[in-house]
Amino acid sequence: MPDYQQLSAADLAALEAICGPERVLTGPAINEDYHHDEMPEYGKFPPEVVVEAQSAAEIARIMRYASERRIPVTPRGSGTGLCGGAVPVRGGILLSTARMNRILEIDEENLTVTTEPGVLLMELAKAVLERDLLYPPDPGEKSATIGGNVMTNAGGMRAVKYGVTRDYVRGMEVVLPNGDLLELGGKIAKNSSGYSLKDLLIGSEGTLGIVTRLTLRLVPLPKKVISLLVPFPDLDGCIGTVPQIIKSKAVPTAIEFMEREVIVAAEEYLGKSFPDKSSDAYLLLTFDGNSAAEVERQAEQVAEICLAAGAVDVLISDTEERQEAIWSARGAFLEAIKSSTPEMDECDVVVPRNRIAVFVKFVKELERKHAIRIRSFGHAGDGNLHIYVCKDDLSEAAWREKLDRVMRELYDKAIELDGKVSGEHGIGHAKVPFLRQSEGETYFNLIQAVKQAFDPQGILNPGKVCGR
Amino acid sequence: MPDYQQLSAADLAALEAICGPERVLTGPAINEDYHHDEMPEYGKFPPEVVVEAQSAAEIARIMRYASERRIPVTPRGSGTGLCGGAVPVRGGILLSTARMNRILEIDEENLTVTTEPGVLLMELAKAVLERDLLYPPDPGEKSATIGGNVMTNAGGMRAVKYGVTRDYVRGMEVVLPNGDLLELGGKIAKNSSGYSLKDLLIGSEGTLGIVTRLTLRLVPLPKKVISLLVPFPDLDGCIGTVPQIIKSKAVPTAIEFMEREVIVAAEEYLGKSFPDKSSDAYLLLTFDGNSAAEVERQAEQVAEICLAAGAVDVLISDTEERQEAIWSARGAFLEAIKSSTPEMDECDVVVPRNRIAVFVKFVKELERKHAIRIRSFGHAGDGNLHIYVCKDDLSEAAWREKLDRVMRELYDKAIELDGKVSGEHGIGHAKVPFLRQSEGETYFNLIQAVKQAFDPQGILNPGKVCGR
Repeated sequence: MPDYQQLSAADLAALEAICGPERVLTGPAINEDYHHDEMPEYGKFPPEVVVEAQSAAEIARIMRYASERRIPVTPRGSGTGLCGGAVPVRGGILLSTARMNRILEIDEENLTVTTEPGVLLMELAKAVLERDLLYPPDPGEKSATIGGNVMTNAGGMRAVKYGVTRDYVRGMEVVLPNGDLLELGGKIAKNSSGYSLKDLLIGSEGTLGIVTRLTLRLVPLPKKVISLLVPFPDLDGCIGTVPQIIKSKAVPTAIEFMEREVIVAAEEYLGKSFPDKSSDAYLLLTFDGNSAAEVERQAEQVAEICLAAGAVDVLISDTEERQEAIWSARGAFLEAIKSSTPEMDECDVVVPRNRIAVFVKFVKELERKHAIRIRSFGHAGDGNLHIYVCKDDLSEAAWREKLDRVMRELYDKAIELDGKVSGEHGIGHAKVPFLRQSEGETYFNLIQAVKQAFDPQGILNPGKVCGR
Repeated sequence: MPDYQQLSAADLAALEAICGPERVLTGPAINEDYHHDEMPEYGKFPPEVVVEAQSAAEIARIMRYASERRIPVTPRGSGTGLCGGAVPVRGGILLSTARMNRILEIDEENLTVTTEPGVLLMELAKAVLERDLLYPPDPGEKSATIGGNVMTNAGGMRAVKYGVTRDYVRGMEVVLPNGDLLELGGKIAKNSSGYSLKDLLIGSEGTLGIVTRLTLRLVPLPKKVISLLVPFPDLDGCIGTVPQIIKSKAVPTAIEFMEREVIVAAEEYLGKSFPDKSSDAYLLLTFDGNSAAEVERQAEQVAEICLAAGAVDVLISDTEERQEAIWSARGAFLEAIKSSTPEMDECDVVVPRNRIAVFVKFVKELERKHAIRIRSFGHAGDGNLHIYVCKDDLSEAAWREKLDRVMRELYDKAIELDGKVSGEHGIGHAKVPFLRQSEGETYFNLIQAVKQAFDPQGILNPGKVCGR
């Protein structure tokens, strides 16, 4: 581990000289929220100082100073992460980009939006919608910043048809650990000009550079959207239908799966009722396009596949209100599960989508075998599952022991099925050992060497992703 | 420059022990084609030995040996590159993957194809078409290998709607310079598990690893395709229409532009006649989708935009034969221009698509100013232009001098318009100085450090991309 400097009074004065005293917070002025992300279970790490940056130039000066003094710097957006990526595990400066929240330009000729990193996903989505444009990535957590989304390569619901965040990043400006400013990509639609450091930065969780501006690709807003809610008598039949849908060459925008118990929890959490909860398991599908006839034809084709595969019914939802009711429940699953247990741990493995039924069945067996409550839901159409292991009233010792075994078995199974540790949440510090185990030493040594090339002093978001 | 070993008789024997003598070629057994790619203008570099590998295991053994002995290794597919990327500029081993040409699996449940790198683009396209699937990337050179396509992040015609090669690479197996084998990604649709070395490898032109297997994403084959050939009285009106088309929220699959003189050259080269050559400039557009009505509606909408913008006519081509006639001419442009001049140089800059009219006008001025013949055509819809500067009957001295000035001015202008050196052909060794100039020292030093992390001895495809 590198030899870091503790912050001195002179350091604080230097930071105040860069940003002004009102955006440099210390001691009791630091909100306890800054000690963790959405998983305080992974530990609480108070920063020595929080700096709320307002520009790339400020961040460049901060990094130059931190680099001279070997002070660790942890960049942070909204802090909605789930693996400790934005938590200052080695102290130092917590650098918030939340104030860099201006949308700079929507370019309708190049179909791009240029934005600062602190803009929230929901704000970005709304701003482009007003121009009849769509930013397709649609992670569940709408109050995440767009910078955080890019730095974790966030996925979301619409990945089945539209892909993930990576597919929409055209250009970025980053500040490197030594304070140098670098422009990568731009508004261009193609690029074969040297190593794509842009694509290396995407998903690097703020360990290689701090993103200060983004240019993102947009698509014309589809004119018609239909959702189908499809109840099945059991989970096997429900998830087993997904490969048939894909094979039929239909192109749904999203295919989510959910179980009754999670729906009931969301109803309780939201105080709103869900259109149906009479069945054990549900698929929720959306279709979009510009031709109502074509969207309806696709939805009907998939409805027939579901009914032939044993679905109890197909509930069509083509008004905004009905869709809102269903999708708001879907959006509350994580919070609903969280509020049902004093403590939990999560895992967001991804497997090839034709293996997801096998994986979900395995999770059910694990629940029985270890006598521990496990809830899961997720993106059946793209193979990405969110699995929540709940402590409930287990003793601390029993919880630790069971959790450890369950997590190991989950990751082992994902790897056996040619899956990966994280579909969309990232590695942070909490999942470093699982990444190392699943990808192996050759990969792990290489990413450490890449980290070394960008950050020879190891001051930028240390302890994350590659553990350095 | 690193200190390389020349090959000895013992080295040749070692290579023969790995691959058998019939796949290790030396001296007169080496075809002169192996001394260069499709641009012999950038120099001819005879390899010391050509090895035709047949498996990842062989390549791993070769790299382990080359690494011990510090022998340069240059990987090569079909050799259809245009910037010297697959040319052994520092001698050593030319490692051909052309024999690794099996398509291993088409997976209809995950919509992926798994293939060896030596499969030709046209073979891959045909094999998936037979299953009613589409591999969307569509570069002009159909006899390139898929490995070469991935290693240059090839673009092609359909990038307007479907993106580029990068967007379709789900997984790869690579052999690293030290002979280690690495699996990256897989069949999974989402991945946030550590730095995306896969995306760093894409477009790295065989300088960081040798790709030995690829898993590529496919999409259901659209049922309906329409092409429009739209003649305009002049080039300005022609290209100026493109941003209006994009702004209208139509989603063409491709928007190409071409001028009469290039069409006439292609007619002569092919001995086939083009549907129309009465006008100065043309847009060629395609639209695809599953609903004939919706595809026709989009085509009509765009036809009206073109006519309102001054188009002379709109020629609809909705039969396979007519589309074939138009697109085969488009496919022959490069060869037609090549055969019209004893020597030429090319540049494939990319600019934001709303700047392409400005850039094309600039090219015309350059032609007049330097009294040199310049032909261009390209991907108007994605801002990627192919520009060919022709020597014709200029003296060697006049050609060198004019070419040097024209190239500098072209790249300077592209950078001024926020463009990049290469939209799809790559950097190879020929464009290293232009990459360095346009991206700057911070970028260039970083990519050299990344190269160093992967290949500390500098033996894999030395002299390319980052010049090391």
